[in-house]
Amino acid sequence: MALTVGLLGFGTVGQAVARLIVERSDGLLTLSHIFNRDVARKRVAWVPDAVTWTDRIDDVLEADVDVIVEVVGGLDPARTWHERAIDAGRPVVTANKQLIATHGQALLGRAAERGVDLLFEAAVGGGIPVVRGLREGIAGDRLTSVSGILNGTCNYILTRMESAGLAFDVALQEAQAAGFAEADPTDDLEGYDARAKLCILARVGLGLDLAPADVPCESIRTISDDDFVYARRLQATIRQVSRVSAADGQVEARVGPALVPLTSPLARVIGSQNLIVAGGAYGRETTFAGYGAGGFPTAVAVVSDLLAIARRAGGAPAAWPNTTAPSSVTNLQMAPYYLRLVVHDRPGIIASLASIFSAHAINIDAVLQEPGGTKDRLPFVITLEACSTAAMGQALAEIATLPFHVTPPLCLPVLA
Amino acid sequence: MALTVGLLGFGTVGQAVARLIVERSDGLLTLSHIFNRDVARKRVAWVPDAVTWTDRIDDVLEADVDVIVEVVGGLDPARTWHERAIDAGRPVVTANKQLIATHGQALLGRAAERGVDLLFEAAVGGGIPVVRGLREGIAGDRLTSVSGILNGTCNYILTRMESAGLAFDVALQEAQAAGFAEADPTDDLEGYDARAKLCILARVGLGLDLAPADVPCESIRTISDDDFVYARRLQATIRQVSRVSAADGQVEARVGPALVPLTSPLARVIGSQNLIVAGGAYGRETTFAGYGAGGFPTAVAVVSDLLAIARRAGGAPAAWPNTTAPSSVTNLQMAPYYLRLVVHDRPGIIASLASIFSAHAINIDAVLQEPGGTKDRLPFVITLEACSTAAMGQALAEIATLPFHVTPPLCLPVLA
Repeated sequence: MALTVGLLGFGTVGQAVARLIVERSDGLLTLSHIFNRDVARKRVAWVPDAVTWTDRIDDVLEADVDVIVEVVGGLDPARTWHERAIDAGRPVVTANKQLIATHGQALLGRAAERGVDLLFEAAVGGGIPVVRGLREGIAGDRLTSVSGILNGTCNYILTRMESAGLAFDVALQEAQAAGFAEADPTDDLEGYDARAKLCILARVGLGLDLAPADVPCESIRTISDDDFVYARRLQATIRQVSRVSAADGQVEARVGPALVPLTSPLARVIGSQNLIVAGGAYGRETTFAGYGAGGFPTAVAVVSDLLAIARRAGGAPAAWPNTTAPSSVTNLQMAPYYLRLVVHDRPGIIASLASIFSAHAINIDAVLQEPGGTKDRLPFVITLEACSTAAMGQALAEIATLPFHVTPPLCLPVLA
Repeated sequence: MALTVGLLGFGTVGQAVARLIVERSDGLLTLSHIFNRDVARKRVAWVPDAVTWTDRIDDVLEADVDVIVEVVGGLDPARTWHERAIDAGRPVVTANKQLIATHGQALLGRAAERGVDLLFEAAVGGGIPVVRGLREGIAGDRLTSVSGILNGTCNYILTRMESAGLAFDVALQEAQAAGFAEADPTDDLEGYDARAKLCILARVGLGLDLAPADVPCESIRTISDDDFVYARRLQATIRQVSRVSAADGQVEARVGPALVPLTSPLARVIGSQNLIVAGGAYGRETTFAGYGAGGFPTAVAVVSDLLAIARRAGGAPAAWPNTTAPSSVTNLQMAPYYLRLVVHDRPGIIASLASIFSAHAINIDAVLQEPGGTKDRLPFVITLEACSTAAMGQALAEIATLPFHVTPPLCLPVLA
C-alpha cells in the first residue's frame, strides 16, 4: 500500500526524512505536506512541486494524508498533534523521545483503541533498530536488562577527553562547533535525553512503566581530564552509561557517568555512536550498535517505520507492552566505586576518609595518586569494594562536609 | 491471536523451542505436535500431556495446527514439508539456512501467493535479529554491504588458536568436545554454512539473488598456529569473514579466513559469537551481535517469528525482496594480501617470488620471518600491497609450481 506522508518539522531530521522519501524509487511513500514554523525560509528546490508547504498545523492534520511524521520534538504541542492524528485514524511515526517516554502509555493506548500505529524507532538510538529489535526481533526471549550508550553528545565529549586529553569545557565547545551538541546542551549532559530513551527501552524490553523523573540521573559535567588519567591507570575509561534491569521484583535503573573497563564493548564506542546490549534469560547478550544521532541515521529509522506501516496493510498495530502498575526503582544492587577528590593537602585526610568508610562497612580497595598535584590542589583517587548505593550515598554525604575539598568529590560506579 | 504450533524436529534447537513455548505464560503459543524420527526415545516429561508425539510427518502436516516450525534442516525432505504446509495455507517458521539460501526464492514466492508467512530469522545469526533488522529495522536505508562473522564454530576454533596458541586440529577437537563443532564439521570449516547465511543476508539486505555455489569460499583448515604469530606481529588476527557488497553493478562476495586488524570489531568477536555489520548509504554502519548458535539463542529467533505471526493477525506477510535476475559475483575489488609460505630453505627463494609478483604488477609490502624455523621447514610471510583477486590468483598459481614448498602457500586478504 502506497502512503502519503504529512511531515511535521523540517529541521535536520525532517529534511533528511524528506530526502529519503524523495530519493526512493519504489513509489511506496509520497511526501504530501511539510509543516514548519516560518516555513517560507525553509523551502528547498529538491522537494517536488506537488508538496504543500505550510506553517498552519491544521493544513496537515486536516488534510487527507495517510500517515503523520512528527519530528518537531518537545511535549507540547506535539502531544496534541499526536492525539488529533490518532483520533482521525491516522498512524503516526515520531522521533520524539520525551513525548513517548512521558506520555507513551496514554498515546499508545489511544492508538491501540483506534487500531492505528504509533511507531517511534527514531526516538532511541537514531538509525539503530533497537526498538523493533527488542519488541519483535528478540520478543521470544525474556529480557532482564538493557544497558548501553544512548547519548551521542556525551559520548563524543567523553571520547574526545579520553583520546585528546581535552578539558570538559574544551571538548564541549568542540562538540558544539562540530554540530554534535546544541547551544543549550543541558538535556544531553545532565542525562535527561538518555533517561527518556532508557525509559522507552525499559518499557519495550522489560515491560516496566518507569517515569523518567524516578530514574537517578547524574551529570557528566563533573568529569575532569584528571579522571581519564586515573581511569586509564585502572585499565578503564569513562562513559555515560544508561542501564535498567529487573529481577525478583527489584528494579535497578541509572543514567550517568561510570568507570568502564577498556575491554568492555562500551569502552569501544567512539564519538557520536550508540550501543545497546539486551540481556535475556535465553539468548544471553544481544548487541545493537551504530549511529545514534544525526539527520540521516534518524531518518532511516523514521522511513523504516513508514515502510512497516505500508507493509502491514491492515494488520494489527504493534502492541505497547501492557503493565499493570508503574514500577519504582529500587537500586539495591552492590557496585564497586571510584572516588576522586581534590584537596588542600594536610595530614589526616586519608584517616578521616577511612574512618567514614569503616563506619559504613565499606572496604577501601586502593588509594592512587598521580604525580603533578600541588599542596593547594591535590587530586587523588580511592577505589572502593562493592557496596550498596545507600551506604555509598551516606558515606559521600559525610565526606562532603569535611573541610579539605577544593572541588566537590566525584563518585562513579565501576562497571564489571 | 493464539497459535497452535506443530514442531518438526526435536534436536537441540527443537527442544529449546519447545521449552520456550512451554515456559511462556501469555497463552499466545500452544505446542500441539512434535515430529521426530524414532520419536519414542525423544519423549521428555516437561512437555504437556496434550502434545501429540509422532514419527509420521503426515500426523503434523495434516493436523489442524496454525503454524509449522521446521528445525530439522537439510534440503530434502524439508522442502516438500514447507511446500505442503504453505499449500495448506499454514505459515512456516524455520531455522533451515541451506533450504532458504537455495530454494528461498521459490518457497517465499509460493508463500506470498498463498498469503502466508515463511519466516527464517533463526537461519542466520542464531538469536541475533539480523534478518528482521535488515528487512524491517533499517529498511529505510539503501544498503550497500553486509559483512561479519556468521559461523560460531569457525570463530570458536580461530579464537582458541589465537588465545591459547593451539594447533588447528587441537582447537577443532576441543570445539567438538565442547559441543561447538559437529562430528563432521565440513560445512562449518569449508565455509558452506556461512555462505548459505551470507546468501540469505545478500537477498534480504541488498536484494541480490546469489546462488551459494557462486560465492567463493575458502576453508579455515589451512590456518596454522604460525599464522597467528605473524598476524599478531602485523597488529592483526585471523577470522572467518563473510562479506557481500554491491555498487555500480559490481558484486563482491567471499567467505573465508582473512587477516583482521586488532582494532576491528571483528577481532573482538570471541568464541561462538556472531557479528554482522550492515553498511548503508544513509545510516552508515549498523551492527548486530550476539550468540549465533546454540539451542536457546536459535529458539529465541524461532519464537520471535512465531510471535510476529501471532501479532500480524491477518496483515500481509513480509515480502521477500523481488529481484529480476540472478546476480553474479564480480569480485573486482582490490585488496592487500598476506602470503605465508613454509619452505625448504635455499638461495633464491625471495628472488623467484619477487619476479613472479613483479610480472603481475603486484608490489611487495614486507617480508617477515619469526625466529625458530629450520632449514627443512622454514615459515615466513610476505605482505602485498592492494591488487586484484585475478592478479593474485595468477601469481599464486605460478608460485604453487615452485619446487621449495613444504606445505601449500596460504594467502589471505587483509581487511582494512
